[in-house]
Amino acid sequence: MMDNSKFPPVEELRLRWEKLQQTMRAEKADACLISSNVNIYYLTGLIFSGYVFIPVSGEPVYFVRKPEGLENQWSIAIRKPEDIPLLLQERKFPLPKSILLETDQISYNEYLRVRQVFTDSEIGNATPLLRTQRMIKTSYEIEQLLFTAKIHAAVYTRIKQCYHQGITDIELQSNIEREMRLAGSLGLFRCFGNNMDIYMGSLLTGENAATPSPYDFALGGGGLHPCFPIGANGSMLKEGTSVMIDMVGNYTAYLTDMTRVFAVGRLPEQAYRVHQVSQEMHAWFLEKAIPGTACSDIYDRLMAMAEASGFGRFFMGLKQKAKFVGHGVGLEINELPVLTNRSKDRLQPGMAIALEPKFVLPGIGAVGNENTYLVREKGLEKITIFEEDIIEFQPQL
Amino acid sequence: MMDNSKFPPVEELRLRWEKLQQTMRAEKADACLISSNVNIYYLTGLIFSGYVFIPVSGEPVYFVRKPEGLENQWSIAIRKPEDIPLLLQERKFPLPKSILLETDQISYNEYLRVRQVFTDSEIGNATPLLRTQRMIKTSYEIEQLLFTAKIHAAVYTRIKQCYHQGITDIELQSNIEREMRLAGSLGLFRCFGNNMDIYMGSLLTGENAATPSPYDFALGGGGLHPCFPIGANGSMLKEGTSVMIDMVGNYTAYLTDMTRVFAVGRLPEQAYRVHQVSQEMHAWFLEKAIPGTACSDIYDRLMAMAEASGFGRFFMGLKQKAKFVGHGVGLEINELPVLTNRSKDRLQPGMAIALEPKFVLPGIGAVGNENTYLVREKGLEKITIFEEDIIEFQPQL
Repeated sequence: MMDNSKFPPVEELRLRWEKLQQTMRAEKADACLISSNVNIYYLTGLIFSGYVFIPVSGEPVYFVRKPEGLENQWSIAIRKPEDIPLLLQERKFPLPKSILLETDQISYNEYLRVRQVFTDSEIGNATPLLRTQRMIKTSYEIEQLLFTAKIHAAVYTRIKQCYHQGITDIELQSNIEREMRLAGSLGLFRCFGNNMDIYMGSLLTGENAATPSPYDFALGGGGLHPCFPIGANGSMLKEGTSVMIDMVGNYTAYLTDMTRVFAVGRLPEQAYRVHQVSQEMHAWFLEKAIPGTACSDIYDRLMAMAEASGFGRFFMGLKQKAKFVGHGVGLEINELPVLTNRSKDRLQPGMAIALEPKFVLPGIGAVGNENTYLVREKGLEKITIFEEDIIEFQPQL
Repeated sequence: MMDNSKFPPVEELRLRWEKLQQTMRAEKADACLISSNVNIYYLTGLIFSGYVFIPVSGEPVYFVRKPEGLENQWSIAIRKPEDIPLLLQERKFPLPKSILLETDQISYNEYLRVRQVFTDSEIGNATPLLRTQRMIKTSYEIEQLLFTAKIHAAVYTRIKQCYHQGITDIELQSNIEREMRLAGSLGLFRCFGNNMDIYMGSLLTGENAATPSPYDFALGGGGLHPCFPIGANGSMLKEGTSVMIDMVGNYTAYLTDMTRVFAVGRLPEQAYRVHQVSQEMHAWFLEKAIPGTACSDIYDRLMAMAEASGFGRFFMGLKQKAKFVGHGVGLEINELPVLTNRSKDRLQPGMAIALEPKFVLPGIGAVGNENTYLVREKGLEKITIFEEDIIEFQPQL
């Protein structure tokens, strides 16, 4: 059933290998040995249990633990990492003097095991190199993001029909999840970081929007159970409260991020004024941000706009405030760059950025949209195209 | 909205701390410093960003990075792990001479960072200790499992209504996902291991049941996209093929595992005979396995039964065969013990075991059920109670 169009073409893979090899040369590394799912997928277009060996020049080797169905010109079956050196020697690869492992991702004990295999090699960290490389999307990746964004927006057009009077936040969310699945949502939602849990996205109404959460997402929410404290908490949707809908776009391997604000009946006037401030932030970003703009400047600018509006105390949360206003998206929902005041990154063509200036209003809920933008040579392109004003749910009898 | 009944009582937490402290004494460890979500939840009933410090005697300290909403008698706010030693000293805790970290779970770089904080301490591995402790469920945990199992079974009674003629596997699966969510499914589905991806469970029909997958689940399936190669692949359900439904029970923090086999029309006779073999394996397990039974003996026995039936070549997969016939369940879907021939574990009261003797029949699909059992003093108790024969979908016009 799986069609070839779902695999990146070989030229695309070569592009990624060559780019990584350039970085390896600059870092004086002889090889990378990659074992996280996300980076295995990035470098091979496949998911397998094992390792991708990328030498500083030449073709990679895929060391695959369960090779059934994964036969291709780069794959070699292994049972354990200890098999690797001999297999490399048989292929005339010199054992690397310095090798990069994903030391921000692999466990300490996995590190020790691989370390013993490459006992004479110097070890470096591949995680930031790959995160930095993945920050700049290729044309192929941009196509995937555009495709995802289109379905993402189409699903959002059906959210109004998911509402009925007397619905709870979680019922509304599961109605939307159903629309997502029927539109081809893969379910999968990859995040960077070992302590992140998420399920398809987040829907926050009323006071729950102010509930702190341990996860590093922009807003929180109490969740249904203390074992998973984020998002919808079973609240009934109430007249005069907002419903912030931030359900992921996971229609290809590449994720888009989009938030829209819905309302049950008319909200207090303040909500519309504050939502307008968020829209002005998006307008500023779309108009003024260009390649070269510092991510920290974007953060500072949005903070200043929030302060100037008089609503700064509501910006990015109440008691608990997110320390970023946006982030990269791609194979993971939280890629580089991070739009925060400590970022050293600048916008570059090929970045895909989710901007999410959000406000939490006591007694009302959260307002402010999120859109995904591509950084192009001349400026930004918004790819999550859907109504941006607060959308009123129509009471249905 | 979150009611107190969703938090484990303090006596339950004390029980867990004391059990861990006993193990620590046996291991001559002065403290554990725990940072994985699953073990933080196990030890505190909460999820937070930070560390649980469990001294070998006395009360724990929760070092919490984002303390908003997590105020309690054990919590102390920290910004970074480097804050910990001074805070311990202020509380008159001696710095531990030996400390256990979750070195199978935390990243190499996270290890290095904490290692520098406890620069004079000997470091050991907390992961197997906690996995082993969590293998034996407390009465509170058993109650949670029973509650989950009950809803799990109730949702399965609604699967027949999720079917209609001409449906695809993924449409059927998303209909079931909707029933799950309406019944309170938390969405969350925790797995042990860094390379596992899963979304709510797996539904396999016809030839797709034989498709290999890189993940360590019992069966595979091609999935919708190469970035997530497992489970339903978009196949149309066909007359004369089976539909194996293995959707998770995630209605509390504690997961149950249950598989049932459905059929479109009548299957070839062989399918019923092979399904009967799987049912005989369950019957044997329920009747004969008792505390003290070796997990490896259960594996060997089922392998022998599969061989004796003449259907051994179909057992636990075709090209790719799982090397286990069951596993523990709890906060994660793949807990200890593993029913495999290399296991050194024996059944003990308090274990919760999912037994899944499955066969993949070429041209038909997978057959064989999965049930979750509790190990009690006198033997096993099945907790996933639902029709066990192959269930025929009724063509609906």
